[in-house]
Amino acid sequence: MKKDKLIDRLISNVKSISPIVVGLDPQISRIPTEIFENNIRRFGDNKNAKLSTIFDFNKVVIDQIEGLCSIVKPQLAFYEIYGSAGLKVYEDSCAYARQKGLFIIADAKRGDIGSSSSAYAEAFLGGGGFSADFVTINPYLGSDCIDEFIKYVDASDKGVFILVKTSNPSSAQIQDLMTDEGSVYSTVANLTEGLSIKRIGKYGYSAVGAVVGATHSEKLAELRQLMPTSLFLVPGYGAQGGGGKSVSPAFDKDGLGAIVNSSRGIIYAGADGPDYKRCIHQAAKDMIADLAAAIK
Amino acid sequence: MKKDKLIDRLISNVKSISPIVVGLDPQISRIPTEIFENNIRRFGDNKNAKLSTIFDFNKVVIDQIEGLCSIVKPQLAFYEIYGSAGLKVYEDSCAYARQKGLFIIADAKRGDIGSSSSAYAEAFLGGGGFSADFVTINPYLGSDCIDEFIKYVDASDKGVFILVKTSNPSSAQIQDLMTDEGSVYSTVANLTEGLSIKRIGKYGYSAVGAVVGATHSEKLAELRQLMPTSLFLVPGYGAQGGGGKSVSPAFDKDGLGAIVNSSRGIIYAGADGPDYKRCIHQAAKDMIADLAAAIK
Repeated sequence: MKKDKLIDRLISNVKSISPIVVGLDPQISRIPTEIFENNIRRFGDNKNAKLSTIFDFNKVVIDQIEGLCSIVKPQLAFYEIYGSAGLKVYEDSCAYARQKGLFIIADAKRGDIGSSSSAYAEAFLGGGGFSADFVTINPYLGSDCIDEFIKYVDASDKGVFILVKTSNPSSAQIQDLMTDEGSVYSTVANLTEGLSIKRIGKYGYSAVGAVVGATHSEKLAELRQLMPTSLFLVPGYGAQGGGGKSVSPAFDKDGLGAIVNSSRGIIYAGADGPDYKRCIHQAAKDMIADLAAAIK
Repeated sequence: MKKDKLIDRLISNVKSISPIVVGLDPQISRIPTEIFENNIRRFGDNKNAKLSTIFDFNKVVIDQIEGLCSIVKPQLAFYEIYGSAGLKVYEDSCAYARQKGLFIIADAKRGDIGSSSSAYAEAFLGGGGFSADFVTINPYLGSDCIDEFIKYVDASDKGVFILVKTSNPSSAQIQDLMTDEGSVYSTVANLTEGLSIKRIGKYGYSAVGAVVGATHSEKLAELRQLMPTSLFLVPGYGAQGGGGKSVSPAFDKDGLGAIVNSSRGIIYAGADGPDYKRCIHQAAKDMIADLAAAIK
């Protein structure tokens, strides 16, 4: 039997498990001290202890969300802080997630000119150490940058999420500028939809998706209309202020079409309490319930 | 005696040496086979041979441009292809360049929301393994993204180059969109200049610079006027089609204000000939002469 395409496998998992994405954004200062202290005992109070703490914490998170979530989104920045050694932890964390059957979205927001963009695409969607299922990409350089990634969508059954409208306060500065043909973000939305509609799978969505922040509820509705076949990756739920109600316009009438990320709101839910593992699990459950109530 | 600021040291070097930047964009398929063959003999035909080839090649380039160029610009994408092991080579190459007294521009084109942008800034401008003098950043997410990097300009005497108008063919798609207040790229230019003008050094320029592609000669002139205090990093010379004449509008009347990058046109100048080292040296010399003739 032929294996389903990535986008169909992903949506099938979303249907049977949940539409939540958990961000693996480890910051030493916020990781439960118990984990750090264990590693200081093992390595001394040094960089190796920090790196091992990050890996151990990612494993805790992945273990706690098992059965509740089928997608993780490591944010590259939090690994790059530690240079190449930090990226080894990124690789090891992805390997652990993959072993658990999770889809991986590399939140790298890459984008460059021709040959460099091609190298980034190979790095994140080819067979190398950073290889993920999806990568987030920045559209400021236009189509020839994006097309290098699309080659891997077509040839290797990988996916991308193009930044359309981001969740941060100053996202309006460039993205909301009004042109003759609408806002800058709507131009990016049209470009994204143009790539998506040619590649839809059995649920009506493609592996060319869009990043649309949860913090712009009214824009989610506008963009859902502009991009009927593009899967939305919605960040900004939880710590950034978006709730179930505010993300509901990202979903279609069947409750599909969007996956919603929470990073800090889930992974640091237990803060530094002794019960942090259970708190991570519970925060994921609460988010699923919140979304389910808002979507139906 | 107080040490000069980064921007003043850089411009002082540009005045005494040259305004050229050499891009360290190593691609195995284009590196002289002699270097690769030496490493295959040492390591076998495997990934280690490739990684060592990249490092050896970067050393050859750095040695050959000594005295002709004071700035190198490694493109992160070509190291990320090899995952964390490739980034170890990036770190080693930067260390070698630093040992030779070269300034380093990390061509990373990063940009993200608050806490992630802060982590990228720390990665590239803080004290970690990826630490460079300057990093290139993408403005699509707006000021709160950029400000995280500016903190390092102010507190750690580091620098940034903000993508204003890139050299690739599809750069017009988003960057040239016309808004009520001019093009998108001119909005980014105004934003950049606003940050730059508050931070100028003794030559009238600041460490908040702009990336403006050599392939848009008429726009270089327009942007030079819009951004009188922003140092331009001009890519696209050589392999991408820009020549000395086309980049001359990036310079002010004193021949300052821009640094011009060539990657493939210099580092692969010798292609696979036996004389590749001398060809790299000569290509850098030719570029300096071409620019000097065009600027005066």
